[in-house]
Amino acid sequence: MQIKENNVHEFHIKNILKKLEEKGQDAMLVANFNNIFYLSGYMSTSFAFLIIKENPIIFVSGMNLENAKNTSSIDIVKYESYDKMIEYLKEEGIKNLAIESDLTASAYQKFNDFNLTISDAISTERMIKADEEIEKIIKATEIAHKSLIELDVRNKQEKGAQEWECAYELGYLMRKNGATVESFDTIFASGPISSLPHSTPRQHILETPVLVDYGCKIDGYCSDTTRTFVYNERQEEISDIVLEAHDKAVDAVKEGVKACEIDKVARDIITEYGYGDNFIHSTGHSLGMDIHENPSLSLRDQTVLEKNMLVTVEPGIYLEGEFGVRIEDIVLVDKKGKLIGDLPQIL
Amino acid sequence: MQIKENNVHEFHIKNILKKLEEKGQDAMLVANFNNIFYLSGYMSTSFAFLIIKENPIIFVSGMNLENAKNTSSIDIVKYESYDKMIEYLKEEGIKNLAIESDLTASAYQKFNDFNLTISDAISTERMIKADEEIEKIIKATEIAHKSLIELDVRNKQEKGAQEWECAYELGYLMRKNGATVESFDTIFASGPISSLPHSTPRQHILETPVLVDYGCKIDGYCSDTTRTFVYNERQEEISDIVLEAHDKAVDAVKEGVKACEIDKVARDIITEYGYGDNFIHSTGHSLGMDIHENPSLSLRDQTVLEKNMLVTVEPGIYLEGEFGVRIEDIVLVDKKGKLIGDLPQIL
Repeated sequence: MQIKENNVHEFHIKNILKKLEEKGQDAMLVANFNNIFYLSGYMSTSFAFLIIKENPIIFVSGMNLENAKNTSSIDIVKYESYDKMIEYLKEEGIKNLAIESDLTASAYQKFNDFNLTISDAISTERMIKADEEIEKIIKATEIAHKSLIELDVRNKQEKGAQEWECAYELGYLMRKNGATVESFDTIFASGPISSLPHSTPRQHILETPVLVDYGCKIDGYCSDTTRTFVYNERQEEISDIVLEAHDKAVDAVKEGVKACEIDKVARDIITEYGYGDNFIHSTGHSLGMDIHENPSLSLRDQTVLEKNMLVTVEPGIYLEGEFGVRIEDIVLVDKKGKLIGDLPQIL
Repeated sequence: MQIKENNVHEFHIKNILKKLEEKGQDAMLVANFNNIFYLSGYMSTSFAFLIIKENPIIFVSGMNLENAKNTSSIDIVKYESYDKMIEYLKEEGIKNLAIESDLTASAYQKFNDFNLTISDAISTERMIKADEEIEKIIKATEIAHKSLIELDVRNKQEKGAQEWECAYELGYLMRKNGATVESFDTIFASGPISSLPHSTPRQHILETPVLVDYGCKIDGYCSDTTRTFVYNERQEEISDIVLEAHDKAVDAVKEGVKACEIDKVARDIITEYGYGDNFIHSTGHSLGMDIHENPSLSLRDQTVLEKNMLVTVEPGIYLEGEFGVRIEDIVLVDKKGKLIGDLPQIL
């Protein structure tokens, strides 16, 4: 059964070729698995090199040939060695070779005969989502939300469940509800550990508050949600401030606004309340096949938001040794920002 | 609570400094999370840069400062910008800068003022395992083995369970038995899909044979095991050949033997039976904090095996469109190779 989504892939390849041409680049070397999937439909599990040019091809290792040929809309060639690949590129007359920012140093040095330039052509192409991509992210978010409700965190906390058990059961529920896998390792942090923006679920009974940052994938596309379950006045006070920053930042998301302006909205509110130094990360990030994509809603990102971008809004306040609160949702950029899913922010 | 395992970390840093000196390198830039953990005890969750020199330091972002200071045996400095970091390196008189093979192109180009050389000093240091590292891998393997027995794959197959359910329940059992997380995404492949060396568990009732390639982590260290449950004569015939290759290759593992010689032992047997073209990957790989480490038991790897290396032995035969069989165990290198764990190869 060959699945050849030629049209979508060809569309993206054409756009990227145009961007490369504008910068005088002859071709682009692509090694990132998600980028290769995005452009061909083939998801590699070991290594692969896609060469974007008029007639694009993908070099894959022998053990992946079967799968690659079955799923790629781009021609597959068996990888034999770096030397043969480089020889081929030279025969094609390629001199200026665009590369991805995450190409490894070992590949970088192997391709040193070419004039290597880091290109954002693919990540820029991936910023604006197609309708089918948005649908997948909405579906993933709905499954994630439904699963968190089914998990019933307050009940788990009362019963003395452990962090890892809850994280794992949430993963089970998301799969049962149709997801393939988590978007990233679930953060299920309770008590003082919630003041670490990232932590690993422990074999430890749930304290309070309980911060859950999690998501799942549908057809390779990620959801990303955070809720913090608060239990006393002090925690509620902090949660209210974070919620205000969250809501105002969500309202500020729309086409034509710069990414950094959204960050400023959230940061100003938290700073006004005196917790500016406790908001120790940026306000959000785009997402898609990767959980972190461009643009980011940060102090320095000047990207102008465009229709059909998707960004998270996730302000937080972290009180070292005490606790942390973060509230996160995904917002679809349009004339007005549209919150994805309808899970209440306070549960 | 500060955990400062100064001795182990200092020991490794000293060995690496010696290797760098021998090659005329002034310092080494380390960005790989597992390498930083190995040398400092700090496990990063976003980004970090360790500079190995007489007085090593780690640059970490503001949001990770708390966790880094609590867990690192190496001094922590707040990361502000690439420029400041580069300025610091220049002030320290660093010109020849060793880098890891997986440093990203974007970092590579930022550090282009230095004379950059890829160094295997850390991966070489990590090849020979300390007793505590070996113990963790043995413990992870025992938990993984126990969990596969508890899962009872033949019973699942009879009951018509789905691949993803089994993969997920195996993950649950490994956690219940004390593991933190899978070593890698569990492969639970049944029927024709088992002829793909890597595949994702499907929402699909178990066919036969059932190939399970899986592992778990204890304190960051991986196990890696494959068993193939066979159900008829044809499958048994292939399984017997793979088992013979597996057993002979395991017997061949000992100090002083080259990695490629082990590959040859397994490959020759499978080739004799006429399936050489169906053994489409190398015979094994080392493992530790990463699931794939050096050396690899492949055609071209000339590394001489030394005491306290750990390698997987995992021959396989893949019949496209029919099915695949792989059998994998970890072997500890010593005067005689020692199989880790006692899970029967045929279940």
